[in-house]
Amino acid sequence: MARPTITLITDFGTTDGFVGVLKGVILGINPSATIIDITHEVPPQSILAGAFIFGTVHRYFPAGTVHLVVVDPGVGTSRRPILVIGPHACYVAPDNGVLSYLFPEAKVPSAPGAAFTPIQISLPEGWHAYHLTNSHYWRHPVSSTFHGRDVFASVAAYLSNGVQADSMGDPLETITAFTIPAPVVGGGTLFGCTLYTDHYGNLITNFTAADLPQPATKVTVHIAGRAIKGMAASYQDADLVALIGSHGYLEVAARNGNAAKLLGVSAGGEVTVTMG
Amino acid sequence: MARPTITLITDFGTTDGFVGVLKGVILGINPSATIIDITHEVPPQSILAGAFIFGTVHRYFPAGTVHLVVVDPGVGTSRRPILVIGPHACYVAPDNGVLSYLFPEAKVPSAPGAAFTPIQISLPEGWHAYHLTNSHYWRHPVSSTFHGRDVFASVAAYLSNGVQADSMGDPLETITAFTIPAPVVGGGTLFGCTLYTDHYGNLITNFTAADLPQPATKVTVHIAGRAIKGMAASYQDADLVALIGSHGYLEVAARNGNAAKLLGVSAGGEVTVTMG
Amino acid sequence: MARPTITLITDFGTTDGFVGVLKGVILGINPSATIIDITHEVPPQSILAGAFIFGTVHRYFPAGTVHLVVVDPGVGTSRRPILVIGPHACYVAPDNGVLSYLFPEAKVPSAPGAAFTPIQISLPEGWHAYHLTNSHYWRHPVSSTFHGRDVFASVAAYLSNGVQADSMGDPLETITAFTIPAPVVGGGTLFGCTLYTDHYGNLITNFTAADLPQPATKVTVHIAGRAIKGMAASYQDADLVALIGSHGYLEVAARNGNAAKLLGVSAGGEVTVTMG
Repeated sequence: MARPTITLITDFGTTDGFVGVLKGVILGINPSATIIDITHEVPPQSILAGAFIFGTVHRYFPAGTVHLVVVDPGVGTSRRPILVIGPHACYVAPDNGVLSYLFPEAKVPSAPGAAFTPIQISLPEGWHAYHLTNSHYWRHPVSSTFHGRDVFASVAAYLSNGVQADSMGDPLETITAFTIPAPVVGGGTLFGCTLYTDHYGNLITNFTAADLPQPATKVTVHIAGRAIKGMAASYQDADLVALIGSHGYLEVAARNGNAAKLLGVSAGGEVTVTMG
Repeated sequence: MARPTITLITDFGTTDGFVGVLKGVILGINPSATIIDITHEVPPQSILAGAFIFGTVHRYFPAGTVHLVVVDPGVGTSRRPILVIGPHACYVAPDNGVLSYLFPEAKVPSAPGAAFTPIQISLPEGWHAYHLTNSHYWRHPVSSTFHGRDVFASVAAYLSNGVQADSMGDPLETITAFTIPAPVVGGGTLFGCTLYTDHYGNLITNFTAADLPQPATKVTVHIAGRAIKGMAASYQDADLVALIGSHGYLEVAARNGNAAKLLGVSAGGEVTVTMG
Repeated sequence: MARPTITLITDFGTTDGFVGVLKGVILGINPSATIIDITHEVPPQSILAGAFIFGTVHRYFPAGTVHLVVVDPGVGTSRRPILVIGPHACYVAPDNGVLSYLFPEAKVPSAPGAAFTPIQISLPEGWHAYHLTNSHYWRHPVSSTFHGRDVFASVAAYLSNGVQADSMGDPLETITAFTIPAPVVGGGTLFGCTLYTDHYGNLITNFTAADLPQPATKVTVHIAGRAIKGMAASYQDADLVALIGSHGYLEVAARNGNAAKLLGVSAGGEVTVTMG
């Protein structure tokens, strides 16, 4: 039998002992768990960045994976610790929107300034969520500052041991998401924004391939005063390219360079698309 | 049966091949070992920082874990490679104090300037230590610059294979620790210091909950000219908070910010506690 | 039976989801694979640095390891994805020279300026290479920007499942390497260069122990206007030392410091060796 996989996304950084503590707690409860580091370098307390990274990764893991997503600036306040069970996997996180990209309901056409607003969303058919209230599956004493250790890692490890989700806490009708901006149309122009800047300096926008007018070869992408004509097939096609990246989003990249620095654009920057 | 776990704390960084080499050596000796990265970003050659991180993490791992702690500026000199066996786990390290936080004997009341002095300490009841001298369990040829690879990783892997500790070398009566400063009392004031700055910029002090006068709600913490009244329950309680953090130490944190930068304080900074 | 090991060397960085995606794809195909991070911090698109790191690490892993080396600035262009099978291990990579250090044929005496030129080399006796053309073992749809996910990780996982190499694609007679500079002799002086700067700031040169005149104690190493006499045994022997490092190369290091910063030298810097 395959060993259960638990993935970790946190903003704990890799210089302290926090990540090691999570791993120790998990292995203490389930010594045969496979622990997979996704990243621990979400910018501190950035729920939006953590959510984006989670959104690009989770679907690639096999069925039954337990995903632990701990970006938790509200630890110790009234924000709820939650467990979400989907058809494919389990997700353990604070209820602060860090799981937003799981849910198409969160994606709403909006001007960049109106996006990333917290809302309550109902779960899709076949999904369940629980408010983690059963402290039997927590580590004690529970600190007020490190629920990653005392609640989330412990619950994830018990889940990977086969403990039933509905014994972990109370069912929830809705959970917190933030609105993810979808492009809006106005006078022949599509208005969008950048969602994320990756390690290479590539600017990931909120346009998907389906959002673009056809043929995509005739599209012009406008960003930071530059106009990029057509969709490229590879990062090497021109000094500055627009292409559908591996995330499925339109991205803007500089050949052998850093587009974010070159253009002076960061997450939230305006991007528009026109034909011709 | 659970697969044996070997944890890694080093100052090797994550940009070179050093960490990969350790992992390769371990898997070559014990292909079924579970290797757990704690951190490889101890500041280069900082025994004190490595010791603190180790001290905050080791207790969370299950019984029988082998902990490899390699911060080893004296590699190739006369400093001894050692193996320490405790009731709960095994520890493989250079004998330079990097294991100090294992031993309450190392904690002595002291003014900050007098702390972190190397001393020889006797092992507590039930503990054993060995000078690693049996080169049968080393990798050959042994370099003079990378005992992490040739001595420590190799010994850790053989230990995880079930090789007896007393066949690894000669018993030791004492090992090296450095003195860890405990707060000192003077005229109604407790004098302490910061031990470590974490990834979030939180300043970890050397006061434990037990060191504080009661009730803790009436305590004032003085640091860098600021006076922080009372103990907070969460990082969100005020712009600048003092609280008992997840390590069990009093720490000073800035809400959604970086206290170390805000206050201009780094490890070793003075902290005092008064009542009222 | 030991679980198959797949090692990862990439320039994906550790802040995004790219590495997590690779791991998810591998575990989806082979849930019992042991995935070992070597480094993901190869400088973006630096084939030379990735090749050096790979060259220092691969030999330490046990027989049968699958090494995935993805530094791939030419993704989506005509550069070939390849699989190399050696007597000891398997290597999956783009055909851009990132595996050069596997092959002694790539090492040619050359002045620093003439080095690192792409050449085609024949495989040594007992080695095989394949152009990865059988898309049955790829992930679909195949993006033009992330063959790490869609080709390399997928192929590595199927290999670890026991799929035969010759079913993965077409045999190759030659693969791409770049020339690795070996020292050249001229008028009693050996002319070489630095190959790499490590995390500690140690400068790794292209002189091996065998390249040095004997006795090595009488050698003088010249770098950045400094003359370092004799070979040291440890990093603590002097403020600035030359020694044969753990890679097997002559390296220049500063005691408790950073030689690269101290001397203002980076990879490719000139180093000469004289007697006396």
